[in-house]
Amino acid sequence: MAAEALHGFRPLDEASLVAYIKATPALASRLGGGGLDSLEINEVGDGNLNFVYIVKSSSGAAIVVKQGLPYVRLVGDSWPMSRERAYFEASTLREHGRLCPEHTPEVYHFDRAMSLMGMRYIESPHIILRKGLIAGVEYPLLADHMSDYMAKTLFFTSLLYNNTTDHKNGVAQYCANVEMSRLTEQVVFSDPYRVSKFNRWTSPYLDKDAEAVRQDDELKLEVAELKSMFMERAQALIHGDLHTASIMVTPDSTQVIDPEFGFYGPMGYDVGAFLGNLILAYYSQNGHADQANDRKAYKKWILKAIEESWNLFQKKFVHLWNKHKESGEAYLPDIYNSSHLLSLAQKKYMTNLFHDSLGFGSAKMIRRIVGIAHVEDLESIKDASKRAECERAALNCAKMLLKGRRQIETIEQVIEHIQSFDRE
Amino acid sequence: MAAEALHGFRPLDEASLVAYIKATPALASRLGGGGLDSLEINEVGDGNLNFVYIVKSSSGAAIVVKQGLPYVRLVGDSWPMSRERAYFEASTLREHGRLCPEHTPEVYHFDRAMSLMGMRYIESPHIILRKGLIAGVEYPLLADHMSDYMAKTLFFTSLLYNNTTDHKNGVAQYCANVEMSRLTEQVVFSDPYRVSKFNRWTSPYLDKDAEAVRQDDELKLEVAELKSMFMERAQALIHGDLHTASIMVTPDSTQVIDPEFGFYGPMGYDVGAFLGNLILAYYSQNGHADQANDRKAYKKWILKAIEESWNLFQKKFVHLWNKHKESGEAYLPDIYNSSHLLSLAQKKYMTNLFHDSLGFGSAKMIRRIVGIAHVEDLESIKDASKRAECERAALNCAKMLLKGRRQIETIEQVIEHIQSFDRE
Repeated sequence: MAAEALHGFRPLDEASLVAYIKATPALASRLGGGGLDSLEINEVGDGNLNFVYIVKSSSGAAIVVKQGLPYVRLVGDSWPMSRERAYFEASTLREHGRLCPEHTPEVYHFDRAMSLMGMRYIESPHIILRKGLIAGVEYPLLADHMSDYMAKTLFFTSLLYNNTTDHKNGVAQYCANVEMSRLTEQVVFSDPYRVSKFNRWTSPYLDKDAEAVRQDDELKLEVAELKSMFMERAQALIHGDLHTASIMVTPDSTQVIDPEFGFYGPMGYDVGAFLGNLILAYYSQNGHADQANDRKAYKKWILKAIEESWNLFQKKFVHLWNKHKESGEAYLPDIYNSSHLLSLAQKKYMTNLFHDSLGFGSAKMIRRIVGIAHVEDLESIKDASKRAECERAALNCAKMLLKGRRQIETIEQVIEHIQSFDRE
Repeated sequence: MAAEALHGFRPLDEASLVAYIKATPALASRLGGGGLDSLEINEVGDGNLNFVYIVKSSSGAAIVVKQGLPYVRLVGDSWPMSRERAYFEASTLREHGRLCPEHTPEVYHFDRAMSLMGMRYIESPHIILRKGLIAGVEYPLLADHMSDYMAKTLFFTSLLYNNTTDHKNGVAQYCANVEMSRLTEQVVFSDPYRVSKFNRWTSPYLDKDAEAVRQDDELKLEVAELKSMFMERAQALIHGDLHTASIMVTPDSTQVIDPEFGFYGPMGYDVGAFLGNLILAYYSQNGHADQANDRKAYKKWILKAIEESWNLFQKKFVHLWNKHKESGEAYLPDIYNSSHLLSLAQKKYMTNLFHDSLGFGSAKMIRRIVGIAHVEDLESIKDASKRAECERAALNCAKMLLKGRRQIETIEQVIEHIQSFDRE
C-alpha cells in the first residue's frame, strides 16, 4: 500500500502549485471563485522538512499548502525520511481537530500520493509561541488553551474514552509512522547520552557538562525506562512534538500545528514537551534581560503559565473522565463504583502521568542543550558565556527533575526546583 | 482484507476433512503417500473453541488438524468470536517455533479462509501438564524447558533484540487479534471485580471471599494498572494464555500449544500465567492428598519448579541480552557501555518484569477462583468444603502477592509467602 500511495509524487513549485490548486475544488473554493488568476504565493518553510506555501487570492482569502519532502535536512546532513509522515500529520490534525477544533487548524485537503496538505492559514498577528516567549510577550490564555488542547486530545484518544477495538485500530494505523518515532528515539533518548557526531553544545563552556551527561549512570538508567515507555506504550494519539515552536499564538488564540510525529504513545510525552519547553524559555530569560527589561516579571509569568498549565490540565482531564466515566474500557463503572474509589484511581493515574510528564519534559530539555537540535530561546543569546550559564542551569534542573521525579508531588514543587537552579 | 480472507469458510466433518487432506500436499505428504485411503480420524476438541482432529494413516504417521469456529462456548452461553484468532494462533506458533523449535510444535499448513491449521501431532505419552500436576507427576525438566521457551520467545520478539521498525510491524499486525484481548480484559481484569453473571465460585463457602474481592479498593486500584499495561504495552509477542493446560509434557519433552491469544503485550503476562498456574496446582494438592500419598513431597517439587522456572528464566533472559547486546534499539551498547552499567540496567528491567509477573500471575489466580473459567486442579476436588479451603488459601495468597508485589525481591520470598498461606 505504501508504495502505491507514494506513486505519482512530484515536488511542486509556484507555477505547478497554481495549476494544482485550480484543479482541486477543496482548495480553489477556499480562495474564492474569481481571484485564482492572481494568486500571491510565498514559500515560508525552513526547507528542513517540507515546502510550506502561503497562498493568497486577490479577494484576501488565504490558505497554507504544505508538501512533504523525502528527507530531513539537519546540520548539513540529509536524513532520508518517508514522506508518509505527511499522511500522519494530516490524520493527526484531523483527529485532534475533531476533538479540539478551537486550537487545531482545519485541514481542507490531503493528497497522499503528493504528500500535500491544504489547511487553514493561521493569520497575522499569530506568531510562533517560541518567538513570543523570546520577545517577552505574556499570553494570558495560553495555559487555559493548552490545557484544553492536551486534556481533550489525550483523554478522547485513550482507553479512558474508547473501547479496545477502536483503540487498537488506531494504534495499528499509526505504527506505520515509525520512521518519525525512530528519529525521536535517536535524537531525544539516545544521542545525548553517547558520543555522536550530531551532538553539539556551547563549547568550551559546557564540555564538562555534556561529558557528565554521558557518564551519568543513574540518569541513563532512568532514560532507558522513558525510552522503553515511548517505544512500547500506546496510551493515546499524541502530537509527538509539542514544543513551543509547534504552537502559534495571539493573546486571544492558540493554534497547535505540525503533528507529523503523531502516533499512539505515552501522554506524558506531550505534556512534558510543552512544560519542558516553557522551562527552557524561563532559563533563557536571564540571557535576554537588559537595562530596559530585567525580565523578572516575565519569568514570574512563565512560572505561572507552567503551574496553571499542569493544574488546569489535570482538572480538565479528570473532569472529562468524570463526565465520560461510562465510556472507555479501562475503568469500568461497575468496578470503580463509588466516587471515593474512582477518585483514588484518578489520583493514581494523574500522579503517574505527572511523573511521566516530568521525565519526558526533562529528557527533552537535556537534548536541546547537548543534543542535535537546540532552541531559539537559548541560541539567540549571543554571548556564549552567558548562554552557557543559562543552559547549565536548565540542564541541572532537568537532570534533577528526571532523576527525582517520583518524589515530586505537585507542580508547585517543580516551580520551587526551577527557581532553586536559577542563579540570577 | 478480513472479509476477503474469511470468504469460503465451511466447517469440516470427518468425510470432508479426508477430501481436504488429499487435496493439500502439505498435509498429505506428512501422512505418507499410500495410506490416505484408510485414515483414522478422532475429534478430540472440547467443542468450546475449535474442532481438533487427530488424523492417523495406516503407516503410523499422524497429524493434528484444528479448525476455528466463529464463537466460544462458555458455561452454556455462546460468545461470538472471530475465526481470525486461528490466523494469529498459527502466526504465533510459527514465530515462536522459529525462535524455540524445541518446545513449539511445527505448523505444516494454514488456510486462513478455512481457519484451518495442520500441525504436528504431539504423540503419546505426552499429556496436558495440568493433568500431570493433578496426578502428582514430577517433570524434572519442566523448569528448564519452560524457562527456555519464555526467555527465547519473549527476548527475541522484544525491542531488546529487534529494531523499532520490525517491532511496530509486528505490533500493528497483531492489533487485529483484539477480540481475544478483549475477552481477556473482561474475564481476567474485569468480571472478578464486579457482579457478573459469568462469575462463579464454590458457594456458599466462598461467598464472602468473592464479595471481599469485589469490595477491595486497594486490589481494584492495582488491577487497574495491570489492565492498562495489558491493553497498552507492546513489549513482546506473548503467547497470551500460558497456563498449564497450554503445555503438553512427558518427563523429557515440553510442548507449548494454543497461542490463539497471541499479541504484542507485556512479558509478565506470560511468565505470570505459568507461575500463577503452578501456584494454583500447589494449593490444589491438599485436596488430592489421600492415605496413599500425602502429596507433601509433590508440593515441595512444585515449589522447586516455581523457584527454578523464574531463576532459570531470569538467567537465560539476561544471557540472551548479553549475547545480543549489539542488537535491538532499546539499550544501545554505546550508551550502556560498561558491564557495570549494563548489569544495573538489566537488574532494573528484570525487577520490573518480576513485579509484572507477580501482578499478572496473581490476577490470573484470582480469576480462576471467583471468575468464569476455573481450573481442573481445583475443580476435580469433589468435596466442596475441602475445595473451598484450597481455593481460599490460593485466593488470599494471590491478593497478597498482587498488592505487595513491589516489596518482594526474590522468588524465594514468593515461595515463603505461598507456604505461609497454606494451612495443611
